[in-house]
This record gives sequence, structure tokens and C-alpha cells, in this order.
Amino acid sequence: MASKELIKNLEDTIENIPDFPIPGIQFKDISPIFLNPKLYESVIEDLVTFSKGKVDAVCGIESRGYLFGIAIAVALEVPFILIRKKGKLPPPIISEKYDLEYGSAEIETREGQIQKGQRILIHDDLLATGGTTEAAANLVEKQGAEVTQFSFLIGLKGLGGDEKLKRFNAEVYHILEY
Amino acid sequence: MASKELIKNLEDTIENIPDFPIPGIQFKDISPIFLNPKLYESVIEDLVTFSKGKVDAVCGIESRGYLFGIAIAVALEVPFILIRKKGKLPPPIISEKYDLEYGSAEIETREGQIQKGQRILIHDDLLATGGTTEAAANLVEKQGAEVTQFSFLIGLKGLGGDEKLKRFNAEVYHILEY
Repeated sequence: MASKELIKNLEDTIENIPDFPIPGIQFKDISPIFLNPKLYESVIEDLVTFSKGKVDAVCGIESRGYLFGIAIAVALEVPFILIRKKGKLPPPIISEKYDLEYGSAEIETREGQIQKGQRILIHDDLLATGGTTEAAANLVEKQGAEVTQFSFLIGLKGLGGDEKLKRFNAEVYHILEY
Repeated sequence: MASKELIKNLEDTIENIPDFPIPGIQFKDISPIFLNPKLYESVIEDLVTFSKGKVDAVCGIESRGYLFGIAIAVALEVPFILIRKKGKLPPPIISEKYDLEYGSAEIETREGQIQKGQRILIHDDLLATGGTTEAAANLVEKQGAEVTQFSFLIGLKGLGGDEKLKRFNAEVYHILEY
């Protein structure tokens, strides 16, 4: 559970950009966090506290999920597995297709990097509708591992993300909620 | 200068995949490095040694440039600036177009994150033809800062990358060369 100070610092740092990338969307720009290494370290400390002793590996979703994900894995001393967009990882790969508002997308991991029976944390910067996160969790389960935790910097309320992740019976954590 | 042990460990870990993504290309898959947090930390230590005291900020190129770049910046206690593909950062942005073999691409930073006069390290996982790296350096110079260092995990020889970066008069470092 993040301290009030951390939450306030993050709220003061994250920029809200109205109508980006399309009218009606309030875009949360997290890039200013990376300008402040001390603030970044406080975020990592908080996310590490949530996962300590509870997972055997961390999966990070390309590309902003890498920015916190790799540091969480290193601090926990567990493997970090890249979940990438279609076509970027060489064979052999395991992939998972999912629907977008218009059309579909596909994410991939390299075969053999996730081990059967592992307890997995899936990390991304933001939970919105949960489509990509759910696909990532399906990808993990396909490989005989178990998603026991999800963590995000930000959870956006009212978009159905939390509901979509319920069936995995995993802990879900986000530092900030909008 | 990386130790022989680090170089050997990396060579044993990085996977060579022939004919990916197209026939004739030897793809270097660095993803197994992230499965080994100790090895990852040794890479960071080496890249930090190269840059210690020499730069005021680090720019990392999306997306694999984030995996080492953020940790370098945090260890140096300097800002980390995201260089992203077109359309992902909200306005105001500064952008730079560059030619690819077929067509062109564009990279962007958010305006105001790079400060005039700063000494900048540009980091990416791999130097090949140098097209993206050169565009990143142009983007930095456009903002009145100076690129004083480039670092990469891997430099691919004979593709013209080193030559393309010469005009910036910056130090160029890669741990491995193929």
C-alpha cells in the first residue's frame, strides 16, 4: 500500500493531457516520472513490496511495462520475461491473439522462458479495459504457469479492467486510481 | 571496458537466430539476459562505469533501449528521457524523421524534457546501420543539448553504424561486437 506522500508526488508529476490520442480520452503521461530517479525508485520499492516472496518470475508488457517491470524483477532476484508485440521475437514463440475495438492484436513470448508451475506477476504501467493484460495472462496459462499477481502504476476506473482480470483469482494492485 | 568474464557470459546467453526477420539476417536475441538478474546487473555496472560523471541525462530508444537505459540513468542519478515511436507521446513534442530502407520513420520526445546545454548519453541495445541512433542524436541537438556518449550492448560491424555517428564527436561504446 503506497504512502500518501508517494501518491501525492506521483499525482503532481503525471501529466493529464485531454483529448489524446482521440477526443474524449484523458491521457496520463507518466514520462515525467523517469526524469526523477528518486521518485522512480520509490515506485519500484512500493511495487516490490507488493510482490516480495510471492512470485517466481515477472512478465512485462511492451513497451512501458518494461520501465518498471525490469527493476521489479531485478529487485526480487527473479527472471524477467518480455511480452512483445507480434513479429519482434524470433521463433520458437508462443502467441495470443485478442480483440481490439477495431480489429485485433497479438502478443508473444519466446517458448521456454516461462516455466511450468511458476507463480507469475504480470506488470504493465496502466490498466484500462484490460484487453492486453488478459491476453498476457492467457499466454502465461498456456505455458502451464499461474498468474498470481498483476501490478500497475495506474488503474483507470470504469473501463472494465478489474472485472476482466477477476477470473484469474490473482491479486491486483495499482498505486494510483483515476 | 567489460571483463572477459562478462563478455563470455553474454556470448553464451545471447542467442543467434539465422534468417530472422528475413533471410540472410543473423538475429541476436538478447531476451535471455533478462532471465538472469545477476547477469543483467553486471551489464548495468559496466555501462554505468562508461558513463559515470560524464552525462547529465540519458535518452533511451523504444523499446529495448528502455531495458538497460532506465537502470543506467537511475544508477547515475540523472533523468531518463523516453525516445518513442511516432504518435505515442502527447503534445507538445519534438520529432525527427529518418529514412529506412523502404519508406521512413519518425521518433519523438516530449518538449521540455531535454534541457539546453545538457551532456546526453544515447542508449540502445544494438547499433546496426545507425539510422535510428543518428535520428535520436539529431533530436537531442535540435533541443540545444549535446550528445557526448553513445552506448550499446551490441555493435554489429560492417553495417556503417560507427561511421554514421562519427560527426557527433561523442564517445561510442558497445560491450559486444559481432
